[in-house]
Amino acid sequence: MVGGGKDAFIGAIHRIAANADGLIELVCGALSINKDIAIDSGRSLFLPEDRIYTTYDEMIEKESRLPEGERMDFVTIVTPNFAHFAPAMLALEKGFHVVVEKPITVSLEEAKKLKEKLDETGLTLCLTHTYSGYPMVKEARELIKNNVLGKVRKIYVEYRQGWLSKLSEREGNAQAAWRTDPKKSGKAGGMGDIGTHAAHLAEYISGLKITELCAQLNIVVEGRALDDDGSVLLKFENGASGVLVATQVAAGEENNLLIKVYGEKGGLEWHQHEPNTLLVKWLDKPAEIYRAGQAYLSPIAKNNCRTPGGHPEGYLEAFANIYKSFAQTLLAKINNTPFQNDVVDFPSIEDGIRGMAFIDNVVKSNESNEKWTPHTV
Amino acid sequence: MVGGGKDAFIGAIHRIAANADGLIELVCGALSINKDIAIDSGRSLFLPEDRIYTTYDEMIEKESRLPEGERMDFVTIVTPNFAHFAPAMLALEKGFHVVVEKPITVSLEEAKKLKEKLDETGLTLCLTHTYSGYPMVKEARELIKNNVLGKVRKIYVEYRQGWLSKLSEREGNAQAAWRTDPKKSGKAGGMGDIGTHAAHLAEYISGLKITELCAQLNIVVEGRALDDDGSVLLKFENGASGVLVATQVAAGEENNLLIKVYGEKGGLEWHQHEPNTLLVKWLDKPAEIYRAGQAYLSPIAKNNCRTPGGHPEGYLEAFANIYKSFAQTLLAKINNTPFQNDVVDFPSIEDGIRGMAFIDNVVKSNESNEKWTPHTV
Amino acid sequence: MVGGGKDAFIGAIHRIAANADGLIELVCGALSINKDIAIDSGRSLFLPEDRIYTTYDEMIEKESRLPEGERMDFVTIVTPNFAHFAPAMLALEKGFHVVVEKPITVSLEEAKKLKEKLDETGLTLCLTHTYSGYPMVKEARELIKNNVLGKVRKIYVEYRQGWLSKLSEREGNAQAAWRTDPKKSGKAGGMGDIGTHAAHLAEYISGLKITELCAQLNIVVEGRALDDDGSVLLKFENGASGVLVATQVAAGEENNLLIKVYGEKGGLEWHQHEPNTLLVKWLDKPAEIYRAGQAYLSPIAKNNCRTPGGHPEGYLEAFANIYKSFAQTLLAKINNTPFQNDVVDFPSIEDGIRGMAFIDNVVKSNESNEKWTPHTV
Amino acid sequence: MVGGGKDAFIGAIHRIAANADGLIELVCGALSINKDIAIDSGRSLFLPEDRIYTTYDEMIEKESRLPEGERMDFVTIVTPNFAHFAPAMLALEKGFHVVVEKPITVSLEEAKKLKEKLDETGLTLCLTHTYSGYPMVKEARELIKNNVLGKVRKIYVEYRQGWLSKLSEREGNAQAAWRTDPKKSGKAGGMGDIGTHAAHLAEYISGLKITELCAQLNIVVEGRALDDDGSVLLKFENGASGVLVATQVAAGEENNLLIKVYGEKGGLEWHQHEPNTLLVKWLDKPAEIYRAGQAYLSPIAKNNCRTPGGHPEGYLEAFANIYKSFAQTLLAKINNTPFQNDVVDFPSIEDGIRGMAFIDNVVKSNESNEKWTPHTV
Repeated sequence: MVGGGKDAFIGAIHRIAANADGLIELVCGALSINKDIAIDSGRSLFLPEDRIYTTYDEMIEKESRLPEGERMDFVTIVTPNFAHFAPAMLALEKGFHVVVEKPITVSLEEAKKLKEKLDETGLTLCLTHTYSGYPMVKEARELIKNNVLGKVRKIYVEYRQGWLSKLSEREGNAQAAWRTDPKKSGKAGGMGDIGTHAAHLAEYISGLKITELCAQLNIVVEGRALDDDGSVLLKFENGASGVLVATQVAAGEENNLLIKVYGEKGGLEWHQHEPNTLLVKWLDKPAEIYRAGQAYLSPIAKNNCRTPGGHPEGYLEAFANIYKSFAQTLLAKINNTPFQNDVVDFPSIEDGIRGMAFIDNVVKSNESNEKWTPHTV
Repeated sequence: MVGGGKDAFIGAIHRIAANADGLIELVCGALSINKDIAIDSGRSLFLPEDRIYTTYDEMIEKESRLPEGERMDFVTIVTPNFAHFAPAMLALEKGFHVVVEKPITVSLEEAKKLKEKLDETGLTLCLTHTYSGYPMVKEARELIKNNVLGKVRKIYVEYRQGWLSKLSEREGNAQAAWRTDPKKSGKAGGMGDIGTHAAHLAEYISGLKITELCAQLNIVVEGRALDDDGSVLLKFENGASGVLVATQVAAGEENNLLIKVYGEKGGLEWHQHEPNTLLVKWLDKPAEIYRAGQAYLSPIAKNNCRTPGGHPEGYLEAFANIYKSFAQTLLAKINNTPFQNDVVDFPSIEDGIRGMAFIDNVVKSNESNEKWTPHTV
Repeated sequence: MVGGGKDAFIGAIHRIAANADGLIELVCGALSINKDIAIDSGRSLFLPEDRIYTTYDEMIEKESRLPEGERMDFVTIVTPNFAHFAPAMLALEKGFHVVVEKPITVSLEEAKKLKEKLDETGLTLCLTHTYSGYPMVKEARELIKNNVLGKVRKIYVEYRQGWLSKLSEREGNAQAAWRTDPKKSGKAGGMGDIGTHAAHLAEYISGLKITELCAQLNIVVEGRALDDDGSVLLKFENGASGVLVATQVAAGEENNLLIKVYGEKGGLEWHQHEPNTLLVKWLDKPAEIYRAGQAYLSPIAKNNCRTPGGHPEGYLEAFANIYKSFAQTLLAKINNTPFQNDVVDFPSIEDGIRGMAFIDNVVKSNESNEKWTPHTV
Repeated sequence: MVGGGKDAFIGAIHRIAANADGLIELVCGALSINKDIAIDSGRSLFLPEDRIYTTYDEMIEKESRLPEGERMDFVTIVTPNFAHFAPAMLALEKGFHVVVEKPITVSLEEAKKLKEKLDETGLTLCLTHTYSGYPMVKEARELIKNNVLGKVRKIYVEYRQGWLSKLSEREGNAQAAWRTDPKKSGKAGGMGDIGTHAAHLAEYISGLKITELCAQLNIVVEGRALDDDGSVLLKFENGASGVLVATQVAAGEENNLLIKVYGEKGGLEWHQHEPNTLLVKWLDKPAEIYRAGQAYLSPIAKNNCRTPGGHPEGYLEAFANIYKSFAQTLLAKINNTPFQNDVVDFPSIEDGIRGMAFIDNVVKSNESNEKWTPHTV
């Protein structure tokens, strides 16, 4: 693991998630750019002293020299955005698979370079767009893929947080500080941090690509350097249209991601705050409440549930689903075993590239007086 | 009453609403352009034979010749949009106050002419934007007016119906037929029918005017003559921004109007499907559930409740609140009595004019490649 | 109308409800035992001076001497419980149909006497158990009647209010005062006031009679003269069992009546606070959300909706449904017209008798050490 | 771990839960009474061959002979109820701490013997009443402990499942088979399986002991050997009263555990299906929505959250909280370090004894004609 020391947030989440299903074990780490924190964090995680590294290049270098079977199998990168590319590229160069926090890099160019390297090496990259790990999100995707709702017409995806309602980056909030710093976060603030999640969710569930967009980005809190709020009108490849909302100044909201998709025959609605429920609405009959853990779900949804209906699973399990799917894919690859890949999926380099292009195009649209900006990659 | 015969929808609603509080009585009507239906409808409503009219001009003419105290006090116009202006203008010319269904007319010009006549005569016009009649909508407005949430930053208003998901206007649905016919409905379809409700609600609750907009209108169902779907980015006078969604092709939705407003300190959320609840969210403390009928509400909200908490009131009561407020205002005017006008309000000609301008500007924006169109009146 | 003057609560509700559908008009009243209030109330309701009475016997006497067609058609009695019987009996004796607030009387004996008189005269009595007037309650009853859920096994009905959490009867709350006074309310407090509603709802929806019960009544607030809280285990005629909860000291609850019924194949759940939704749950497939105003509902449910789906109707409309059903029944009787009685129903003297027996038997069970008390009538 | 092989349900849950926080590692197991399954299960969990045991006595015996620091620290017992006591007792005799699935044993006597042994040895036993591991359950307990709601008056706890609506034990459902078999499950079926959870939750949150009860148990599905349904009237030590519902034949319910507690000033409501929300209701002000992960929560609630608000945690995290609390307690004990025990708790032998007494007393009450049975231990 690169990053994720004692002072970080998402690193701990990754460890719980990776750990959940007994398939993955943390074996080494360069857990902080601060040497003391790196060492201290490694010890508190019971890592062996000789595998607590203080820089990612040291880690990748030394691990790569260990015998096969002893060295790490893949690298997880949970540093701030600007520090994703270099360790990811080095890991790939040294033959390691990679898990990266989203957004994948700070620029589309970097993302494309990673893709080239992946194509060249045949290695696997997993991007942790957590929300597509939820079983009911996968069920939603299946319903649309199987044309249960008819041709998709409207897609609304909304992601509202309130935690940046104040200028917290000036009040010692480390999370807020790097996320609102263009040097560390990239071209966009909230649109990169959570807008990319929303765009990925919309494309994942609908199976449709965004083709054009019309964006308004705002810096709502005075003194902030990057957008903390934005709204985007969307057009999709099949003629459907929609709206994407991503805001971090919706005071009182926690992590309120929701999506509503409507087709010719019905619609569906999913809320991350109640992730085990998928509401399916119909033109001519009562709406239905699909629930995680139930026998009537699709195989891929069921494969991403650990417990029977009524035993709520949440964010950590969704995250764990991504790790589990990645691990199962790696194991199949490593052991050269056949693999039922229709019940296993996880976000990949392609999703990462689309995410970086989304940031680029949203920023471009925001600066343009033209209504529509093509969403090219 | 003009329009609202046996084959109509909204006329019956108006009658129940007007009737609810014992302040208003239906005394005459020109209830249909079809003479037989007009007479038949009048009889079934127990109107006296000599006050069942077959045209609105006959009605207004004859009623105006009745002695004061015997003639009707005001005219309610519930015809399709294109037939609002003429009877409204005639009524005003003959000295009658007017209640009109929204949208007020089919063009901004007509609406402005009505305003001139109102200014000239000192008569009162009430526009039935029903949704602002709900007590919890009034409570939301009070919370913002009293700065409880701090400066408003974001306004999201969404109105989703599914009843035009098919080409129902070709399948004998009379409601669908005139609403999708530009000659009867005006420049816009769904944006006029329900988008104006949404825009009014956003301005009513926030107390802020929309200043610029960026609209996308769609004809989703092939063969339809007017928009059945639209999304609009909004800017407000204080610098706030937002999104307005109005769609009638959200298959599986009933009459799903909702609004979310966020200020510096917190946010609020109201859903028309559960109108007795107003959710108030806070940055630093638990969200609160405000409920209709409770002692802690503002005076105007309480004045628009008929029952104690837990006895749900709905759409008809919201509608009745508009009639009651209008009636109380007229009574005070007629009897020249003092009037506590801070607990009584109803939508007026100004709201009607803003609605017509909204339709104009949305249509204009939709046709433009410029991102932003000013929302001038 | 007997009772329901300016200082009363339920009288105004009855008037709005009776008035809603244009079938019923208030023509006279003895609106208070206080002469001044009676007169003042009558005037404020625009009653003719000569039909504002100051006692119910004067009213019934004088009205009965008016010519047919001029005199009132029926009497509504909205006095406190102890003052139901006498005016009801007198009205029946003088040939008037009767609407009575629940509970029907203060004793089972009185209720039985009313039944004898009704049998003798062929007149009609309507008991306003409001909650069975909701369309989704009728839908629930139809689902069970049509065996959609299979044989009923469990019935849970819960009615929780919080308004008697303090000793409000000593603090000038007139509603609280008479309802907690055994002389005016009868043997039971909360169990009579709201427990009878709950019992009626359970029997109405399930179509099953309670046969045995085991009750615990409590006076939770010290100083109170009657029960303000109770729980009852229930057995039903088909072998089903259940629980009835009725409490008025659930601090923070408004008027939270809910019912859950389970059969062999599925269950249903209805909450009075969101009355337009009926949740239907299934053993092997997703739960369904039945909604008022929808085309798929049963004829009787649809007949009790005034608006399309998504235009919430509430308590006043449920109340109005009872009046409308009663009025339609009377009209058919008076006009001797055929009548589609499978879509029209309202609570009757039989329900009133069962309610009084329920109070008796619950009180008896509470005082007994035997676990089960038969629920005989 | 004793039990929990490949064919079991709860064993896997225990492993995920124990594993979640990096404090506990599975080191050995006697995972099934079937030797082949035991070995196969051990291998699939990557246990070393020499620590895959085929009987619990072999495991406890051999582990106890390993050097300190190498041998297991505690034993988890996840066998069917009848097979809890023997391994638990042996483990205690050999000096191992114990985690046991609930209900703790098949008889009160066994539970009391375990307590004696614990008192004698000073070892620690943890009983996995999962639901008290939820942070919002702990918050509820704190609110009551700190008298925020005033003196508790009413406690309603309801646990409804539907999975035994058919005679599944005859259809190859292994879970159903042992749970409905008196030899394996004990005196009670559903009341032991889920009623004890409900009783524990009520006592845990309220801080009050049940003192008397009046129970009705039913075998709803013909052919079943143990109760699959029951309702119990409750009295608590402070004079409060309540109702406990535990049913496994509520067709359409998943794992619907909920609790409502009312005090003098307000009430609270928690639903296991939406565990991150605690509704707090007030007599005179808006209800509040307390949410997991928020800064305003009590220290013990916060200590049992892993993620910020809006990142839903569920059943597995609640389970993990119990393991984490147990592990932290053990670590403090082992390392003899000071320990902030006001933010760490888990169910103990005392809870186990109360659970067994609850089963005894409910069964006794059900068989009695007396209304009230004392809940003595």
